[in-house]
Amino acid sequence: MKTIYSIFFFFILISGSLSAENGSKLWLRYQPATTIESSLVQFSSVVCLEKGNLLRSATNELKMAYSEMTGKEMPVSVVPQSNSLLLGTLQNKYIRSLNIGKELAQLGSEGFVIRRVKLNADSCTVIASAGEQGVLYGVFHLLRMLQTNSCSFNVKEHPSYKVRILNHWDNLDGSVERGYAGHSIWKWDELPATISPRYAEYARANASIGINATVLNNVNASPEMLSTENLLKVKAIAAVLRSYNIRAYLSINFSSPKELGGLSTSDPLNADVRKWWKNKAAEVYKLIPDFGGFLVKANSEGLPGPMDYGRTHVDGANMLADALKPFGGIVMWRAFVYEPGDDRVKLAYNEFHKFDGQFRDNVIIQVKNGPVDFQPREPFSPLFGAMKKTALMPELQITQEYLGHSNHLVFLSSMWKEFLDADTHAAGDGTTISKLTTGEVYPQKITAFAGVANIGNDDNWCGHHFAQANWYAFGRLAWNNQLSSEQIADEWIKMTFNRQLTADSGQQEIKMSQQVSRDSCLLAVKKMMLSSHQTAVDYMMPLGLHHIFAWTHHYGPEPWCDIPGARPDWLPKYYHKADSIGLGFDRTTNGSNAVSQYASPLKEQFNDMNQCPDKYLLWFQHVPWNFRMKSGKTLWNELCYTYDKGVQSVREYQKIWDKAEPFVDAQRFAEVQSKLRIQARDAVWWKDACLLYFQTFSKQPIPYDIERPVHDLDSLKAIKLDMKHHN
Amino acid sequence: MKTIYSIFFFFILISGSLSAENGSKLWLRYQPATTIESSLVQFSSVVCLEKGNLLRSATNELKMAYSEMTGKEMPVSVVPQSNSLLLGTLQNKYIRSLNIGKELAQLGSEGFVIRRVKLNADSCTVIASAGEQGVLYGVFHLLRMLQTNSCSFNVKEHPSYKVRILNHWDNLDGSVERGYAGHSIWKWDELPATISPRYAEYARANASIGINATVLNNVNASPEMLSTENLLKVKAIAAVLRSYNIRAYLSINFSSPKELGGLSTSDPLNADVRKWWKNKAAEVYKLIPDFGGFLVKANSEGLPGPMDYGRTHVDGANMLADALKPFGGIVMWRAFVYEPGDDRVKLAYNEFHKFDGQFRDNVIIQVKNGPVDFQPREPFSPLFGAMKKTALMPELQITQEYLGHSNHLVFLSSMWKEFLDADTHAAGDGTTISKLTTGEVYPQKITAFAGVANIGNDDNWCGHHFAQANWYAFGRLAWNNQLSSEQIADEWIKMTFNRQLTADSGQQEIKMSQQVSRDSCLLAVKKMMLSSHQTAVDYMMPLGLHHIFAWTHHYGPEPWCDIPGARPDWLPKYYHKADSIGLGFDRTTNGSNAVSQYASPLKEQFNDMNQCPDKYLLWFQHVPWNFRMKSGKTLWNELCYTYDKGVQSVREYQKIWDKAEPFVDAQRFAEVQSKLRIQARDAVWWKDACLLYFQTFSKQPIPYDIERPVHDLDSLKAIKLDMKHHN
Repeated sequence: MKTIYSIFFFFILISGSLSAENGSKLWLRYQPATTIESSLVQFSSVVCLEKGNLLRSATNELKMAYSEMTGKEMPVSVVPQSNSLLLGTLQNKYIRSLNIGKELAQLGSEGFVIRRVKLNADSCTVIASAGEQGVLYGVFHLLRMLQTNSCSFNVKEHPSYKVRILNHWDNLDGSVERGYAGHSIWKWDELPATISPRYAEYARANASIGINATVLNNVNASPEMLSTENLLKVKAIAAVLRSYNIRAYLSINFSSPKELGGLSTSDPLNADVRKWWKNKAAEVYKLIPDFGGFLVKANSEGLPGPMDYGRTHVDGANMLADALKPFGGIVMWRAFVYEPGDDRVKLAYNEFHKFDGQFRDNVIIQVKNGPVDFQPREPFSPLFGAMKKTALMPELQITQEYLGHSNHLVFLSSMWKEFLDADTHAAGDGTTISKLTTGEVYPQKITAFAGVANIGNDDNWCGHHFAQANWYAFGRLAWNNQLSSEQIADEWIKMTFNRQLTADSGQQEIKMSQQVSRDSCLLAVKKMMLSSHQTAVDYMMPLGLHHIFAWTHHYGPEPWCDIPGARPDWLPKYYHKADSIGLGFDRTTNGSNAVSQYASPLKEQFNDMNQCPDKYLLWFQHVPWNFRMKSGKTLWNELCYTYDKGVQSVREYQKIWDKAEPFVDAQRFAEVQSKLRIQARDAVWWKDACLLYFQTFSKQPIPYDIERPVHDLDSLKAIKLDMKHHN
Repeated sequence: MKTIYSIFFFFILISGSLSAENGSKLWLRYQPATTIESSLVQFSSVVCLEKGNLLRSATNELKMAYSEMTGKEMPVSVVPQSNSLLLGTLQNKYIRSLNIGKELAQLGSEGFVIRRVKLNADSCTVIASAGEQGVLYGVFHLLRMLQTNSCSFNVKEHPSYKVRILNHWDNLDGSVERGYAGHSIWKWDELPATISPRYAEYARANASIGINATVLNNVNASPEMLSTENLLKVKAIAAVLRSYNIRAYLSINFSSPKELGGLSTSDPLNADVRKWWKNKAAEVYKLIPDFGGFLVKANSEGLPGPMDYGRTHVDGANMLADALKPFGGIVMWRAFVYEPGDDRVKLAYNEFHKFDGQFRDNVIIQVKNGPVDFQPREPFSPLFGAMKKTALMPELQITQEYLGHSNHLVFLSSMWKEFLDADTHAAGDGTTISKLTTGEVYPQKITAFAGVANIGNDDNWCGHHFAQANWYAFGRLAWNNQLSSEQIADEWIKMTFNRQLTADSGQQEIKMSQQVSRDSCLLAVKKMMLSSHQTAVDYMMPLGLHHIFAWTHHYGPEPWCDIPGARPDWLPKYYHKADSIGLGFDRTTNGSNAVSQYASPLKEQFNDMNQCPDKYLLWFQHVPWNFRMKSGKTLWNELCYTYDKGVQSVREYQKIWDKAEPFVDAQRFAEVQSKLRIQARDAVWWKDACLLYFQTFSKQPIPYDIERPVHDLDSLKAIKLDMKHHN
């Protein structure tokens, strides 16, 4: 009998590994349930108590899940029966009869509860909300619990941020700036006549993780975006998004009045300009009544802005806010500015801090998590906590511009949590970014959480199958910034790699042993994800190093990069400052004094070479090569060992993934395996490049117990990748 | 004081590492001696007792060494004094007075003794021989002992082989077939007018290790080689070589009578053809009276030969032998033939064995060490021991056609010793190749030892600094095939990397501690060399795998190689025979029966999967993937671990070499370091390519504790190196 089992087991593995899977389904995979508790069959019927656009989407999702989990059609009834699943809002009498109105009102129209309730004599389960939106999110929440085998009927949820928004850096020509997953999903040339089915899939995926807003176009915006022709296309997209509670936003070009409208100026204090924007807003809202608002990159990296006319960011943002105000729209004004003049990390603070309290209440300042630009690791931007009378929102980068594009497996949740959990000490201990940005410390009328999307037209949406986890994590943290990275990874893995182990439920013994192996494999995969950000930092730029990337495309290492005539702060040497003494940027009170932009006791910590955390050391300090680190090693040796640790960790990831082969479909297994191979080679490339280059300054040997470089510095310097800024 | 020492020590390291060295001096570096015992100053004067071409070379070498060791001119005297060093032959009365005439006569004109003697009342040291040649070799021997700090005055030496010969695969157009050290050192276009100084350097280097013959041109010979114009050029080279006891030989094209002489045929039994060769021989010897003879590749890989006329190898070889006989010339006739028809490894044996006893006594059959073609590891050719009435000579390949060209550090002495020490059992136990080829078992009138040169016009002669060790080892083994690889490596390292540690002899303490570090470093370098052949086999083709190289250039792995229309036995699949059952070529009695070409008990051992040595297993057997190896591992796992061991070993070599940095001049250090980096990358390439390809047959995972592949099989298959057959 054992032999038969083994043969059977073998067939399962073979047949399983042969079924290809391109990753297009993301985490929305409703596998046949293994237990009653993880299946929708536990409900006698589904009762949608009201009609509505979002409720229809919610019910459709349930139907699809039911059919995929059971192979049968979902039983639907009109009135509650014993053990029904009820969907409804406070509009409905049954829901109102439950006496949870006050609770639901507090949770808001997007919040919800999932409860076991007594309705008349019957025991039912209810997904209830003050609004349709909450029911939709509640349904996805229930399905997630079923998929992850963690069902609870004592659920009460509401989002951390009001606006949970993706920023697409997608251009009208179909290219995506910093996009590594193919061309744009928005088919501007086909719109509005042709509506790609991907728009609805996109909206559904976002809704499943609570994202409720999206900026369709690049912050480096074309004035043409606001042409009537293009707005009609936006209208068509917005109509699809609306079914999943997602509002469309647009990035605008500040010179639109001049470039598109034919005015002689775009001066924000000019009456014609103000009128042009009011009219344009009215036009937009006529087409798209639930339009969200504008995202603006102004006076940054060559883009136009109010300072071109001697005005300020306040003048520019408030003018747009006034135009949008009558329609309920908002302005997200980016603080990513660095006009030359001082240490680059200080510039955004210098520029914006002084305007605190001067922005309209429908303006929110969008601030990148760190003061430079989405580096593998940055300390938080000192604007957080410093602007007390201004709504701020974080801008995170989901697309891996600086983290190996779609070749490297890097789970960004860890980085984002590090940011959210950072204590600014702005209003005493515990003033975390997460509390600040949700308005718990200084009230904000609008709260928002933005992420630069990693989505493209590739079958698997994100280029790397594990990059889907970053989209997922962004949505989950926007919904609930108290979630742990571990929980998010756990959910994502269980939902994404939930291939059935056997087709025949009779083979209980085999299934059990498979399940044990699979659980231990997926646990290792989770650990890999959770350590992957630190690993990338280790092999790319540990100990506070930053921006030592290759010119323009930012893929590989170029700490030596020197482009004649380039802005100094676009060159790696500006940041690493390697010399015969040591390494790192002196931002102490003896240096650029960037430390003083932080509250005490951070400023004192960062200012002291012996107190500054290792992970930010070379960010804030120029450290002698022989400085004794906390580990007891010299800086040079610590650097060597850390780069090597990065390499060894990626090699461990390869082992972890290879062991997961029996539990993952063949296509995704092979594609991730191949990407990990690239990552392993790249990690060695990074290590060799940085150690061999910095060694020309340290003049010290790489510790002899470390695996030696396999490249020559000269040949690494000769590498010029043919990569574009746009994909 | 310690601080001062440290600083001083640091300066030595820095200044030392800055002095560049291009490797052109090979192992002939006479450093200032550290002790009296290792210096020529121990001799009061040098007395060259006779005149002669070779004695002049010997004396010049001593003068150069004296000057480099002491910075002073060597004291020369005409008559022996107390503590003189005397050089002389039996022609001289002083030597004759020593009563060692019989001993010297036994050692032959190339043998010698080095002794402390009493001459009249004086104590002297003598280098004596029956001929000038022996004195020259004796001088180099003495200098080697001084350089390696191993002086002895009880030396008695004579060569293992009469003809110790390099085969240059150099073409008249200056290219070198399988050459990886630049173009040919022979400047045919400048000759005979211009004599490159490199000819003399070449002759001196060869003489220093006992090489006394060289074939100037490629075995794939052009008929033009024998034109009068070219023979005049050969004459010019031969004149230079003669000063160092080196005879010139030429490879000839068997069709020369037709192609060059204008005859209608090259049939060896045709009277005109025979006459043509006799005349050509006479012409050659008129120009070059000490000309050595011809090397012939006939009826092999498309070259012409006697079989084109229905004649045999015997007919062809004997005709040439008859032409050369009057002048004392010999024919080296290659057994590297494999006309299609049977398992390739059997073909040379099949073709030649039947002619045993039929060749003239000035013919010697030149047989590659293994039955295929200079693979990283082969069992010995079964012709050795099987032809009992025919002179055989080994042909080894010094140039690394199949061993990483001039990029990989592979010390070939280990491979050659494995071959020389192999017991053929042809005349009972202990019938080693070394005894067979020196004529100890079956008498041979001529004995010879040939190596395909790795010499080119590069500054460092051999492309890789460590490839010089293979030239060195070849010469040393040709002189004395009983030397151990360890001794040869030890000599070579001490002679080649003997950089002075300090300029100031006063700093005794520092010198001592440096010496200890240096000794331990160089010991590690020696271990690296001694294990390097096994390492290359491990990462290229372990366990008896062979010929799974890339098409034509033979640099990287291409076990999948399939060229439409190619000879099957030029394709890797012919050799590895991978399939779903297992791996390897069945040459047992159930297969091609190549085993039967070996004597008992080898044939029975090789025929039995459980007895066949691991290192030859896949050469002789098609082994199931799950076969239990001697280690207890399955074949598949053993294969995986062995490839990985190869990779890890190269990484260890990198560590060893990096640690040697303080003790090696900067240029050679960096160049070897760079080559080791290539080798480390190539080892991973080999491992990935072979394991991923063979895995498509074994269908088994690579054991999970092994470092994972970093390449995809598809991308490895796409690699097409732009390398030529000629450099």
